[in-house]
Amino acid sequence: MTMTNRQESLPQLSRQDKLKHILQSAALDGLVLNPGPSMIYLTGLHFHLSERPVLVFFMPDKIPMIVLPELEQEKLKNLPFEIQPFAYGEDPSQWEIVFRNAIQNSKLGSKRIGVEPRQLRLLEFRLLSDAAPKAEITSAEDSVSKLRMYKDQNELSAMRKAVDIAQKALMATLPHVKIGLTEQEIAIELTLQLLRAGCDPQIPFAPIVSSGPNAANPHATPSDRKLSPGDLLVIDWGASYEGYISDITRTFAIGKLEAEYEQICKVVLEANSAGRMSTKPGIPIEVVDKAARAVIEAAGYGKFFTHRTGHGIGMEGHEDPYIRSGNLMLLEPGMTFTIEPGIYLPGKNGVRIEDDVVITQSGVECLTSLPRELRQLM
Amino acid sequence: MTMTNRQESLPQLSRQDKLKHILQSAALDGLVLNPGPSMIYLTGLHFHLSERPVLVFFMPDKIPMIVLPELEQEKLKNLPFEIQPFAYGEDPSQWEIVFRNAIQNSKLGSKRIGVEPRQLRLLEFRLLSDAAPKAEITSAEDSVSKLRMYKDQNELSAMRKAVDIAQKALMATLPHVKIGLTEQEIAIELTLQLLRAGCDPQIPFAPIVSSGPNAANPHATPSDRKLSPGDLLVIDWGASYEGYISDITRTFAIGKLEAEYEQICKVVLEANSAGRMSTKPGIPIEVVDKAARAVIEAAGYGKFFTHRTGHGIGMEGHEDPYIRSGNLMLLEPGMTFTIEPGIYLPGKNGVRIEDDVVITQSGVECLTSLPRELRQLM
Repeated sequence: MTMTNRQESLPQLSRQDKLKHILQSAALDGLVLNPGPSMIYLTGLHFHLSERPVLVFFMPDKIPMIVLPELEQEKLKNLPFEIQPFAYGEDPSQWEIVFRNAIQNSKLGSKRIGVEPRQLRLLEFRLLSDAAPKAEITSAEDSVSKLRMYKDQNELSAMRKAVDIAQKALMATLPHVKIGLTEQEIAIELTLQLLRAGCDPQIPFAPIVSSGPNAANPHATPSDRKLSPGDLLVIDWGASYEGYISDITRTFAIGKLEAEYEQICKVVLEANSAGRMSTKPGIPIEVVDKAARAVIEAAGYGKFFTHRTGHGIGMEGHEDPYIRSGNLMLLEPGMTFTIEPGIYLPGKNGVRIEDDVVITQSGVECLTSLPRELRQLM
Repeated sequence: MTMTNRQESLPQLSRQDKLKHILQSAALDGLVLNPGPSMIYLTGLHFHLSERPVLVFFMPDKIPMIVLPELEQEKLKNLPFEIQPFAYGEDPSQWEIVFRNAIQNSKLGSKRIGVEPRQLRLLEFRLLSDAAPKAEITSAEDSVSKLRMYKDQNELSAMRKAVDIAQKALMATLPHVKIGLTEQEIAIELTLQLLRAGCDPQIPFAPIVSSGPNAANPHATPSDRKLSPGDLLVIDWGASYEGYISDITRTFAIGKLEAEYEQICKVVLEANSAGRMSTKPGIPIEVVDKAARAVIEAAGYGKFFTHRTGHGIGMEGHEDPYIRSGNLMLLEPGMTFTIEPGIYLPGKNGVRIEDDVVITQSGVECLTSLPRELRQLM
């Protein structure tokens, strides 16, 4: 038992091993990461993305290297693998030489270096490309996705826990919701409940609480608008547990709704169900999008479903795979993503129902279990 | 009163006006920003930094432009200024053409474009440089700093409120602290108290709660280490209020301390005081660093004060000005920053005392008011 736990606590080692093969098959001589989920995934190292550049270098045939501020070196103690540090002091004029030393040691100076364009900042990119002007710096997002997209049992346990925390937090929040309360007040109560239920200290994203006309904006920021009878109330929230995220949306009725608003809620419920039912290993991802979208289009609301059906989820709130038309990647066991159709009637009301699912060997498991049917809150 | 409030609620307009002059004096033909504090500062627009690129363009002689996903267009309604949108759908293959259209309209195709290297990602940089291959893309960080570094009264009010929230939250947390509690447990309680005290839903950074040997790491992550007698307990936390941040550190004694640990606490208290006392408008910033550092060096602990004395603070936890040796910028009224000397004894214990200050016309105002003297918690 102890041995198993110990092995499980060192997933970074086997991930770094897998990475070597993936880099080689992508003809990449190295992977360079700045702080963020992929660095945590491969090293367990947490750094703030700050004004002080930090980069980890992986090469198939060498031990990893890290450029970091001297004051962060303490974090390298007790790492379960060897790493070669290149540390700099508090004067930014030292960066250039430290980066040049790192590149020289890496032997990547004129090689093919993979990076993450969605994570790497121009700050780090320029330090890297100035130190290695002859290198070809290219996106390694597909390579990193090949590692991170397939969740292992430990990752799935953390995600189940993140769902559980989020669901408990919502259930504890709903009794506080009443007419006259503002979106912001509900968002704050929900945030408190997330932490109380065991969410990581930094919630993965600020909850979206949007009502009435604000609910017609899929990415609304909670405002001081007060809940009123006839509103739809969209709550899009999530927890993180040990760095793994849940992301759920439920829509509620405040008092009696106009017939059209009840109707769009029914349509979206059916679209969510169609999306989930269509999901299984081996099919192209766009099938899921088409299944959900077809229901909304058939009901005449196609142009009011303005976004893709979902996105991958794991260490990031949005990651591969993206559930959209045109994505022909095949679903495979271990992939985790959201299914979240919506209808947004500008200036009027909006509805979205979002679940988190994982592809299994034989089908799909829905991680989220809160009822999806429209519930009238008062 | 209503008119004043209305004017105050439209600071983006006067900021955009100031920006035009700053861009011209920096010989920049445009400024291009991705989501983050500077975009919020200049437009009031909040976007997640996601896989969908969003860029705002400012030109001295044109109305601003924005490239954004169609589903985010709702956010442009009711903006207090004109902005020209370039929207794309859910298929990333549309990005290239939309960016090319935006660059064509901006007339920046072969001009000098300023960006923020610490904020802009390679994703946006490449879309921008591919659409404008002849443009010179250069850092505009100094120009943006010239706007954001000098806080107006509304910003200072928000910062005072962020300090007040953080201080109340700590006072509400301390009664829970006892021997045997873990660092993580204290961090979670403090986070709850931050939200209860009125912090923005997403806390600005996860509190650092580090004890005993962990306190020797200035950027420690709260662990499952239990508080023990003889520990120093370092708590580094902050709140945000309407997007403005506070950042405070206090160090406590758990039970009776070894003489050396009491001594380093005294030295750091004196260094913090020397730093604050040295601070006034018109002096080079490095004077503040030297004043604090001299006290620690005189006590023989110079090599254990491993970081600069402080950093600017406002919409970001770390921003200009940086309080370090070699920074010859002069302090000016409206600048806000931390003063946070520390001593870190590897493997043993650590101490840091951090305050937030604002430069006034005649001197310095300390925003933080919690006692700094070592307090024995049990």
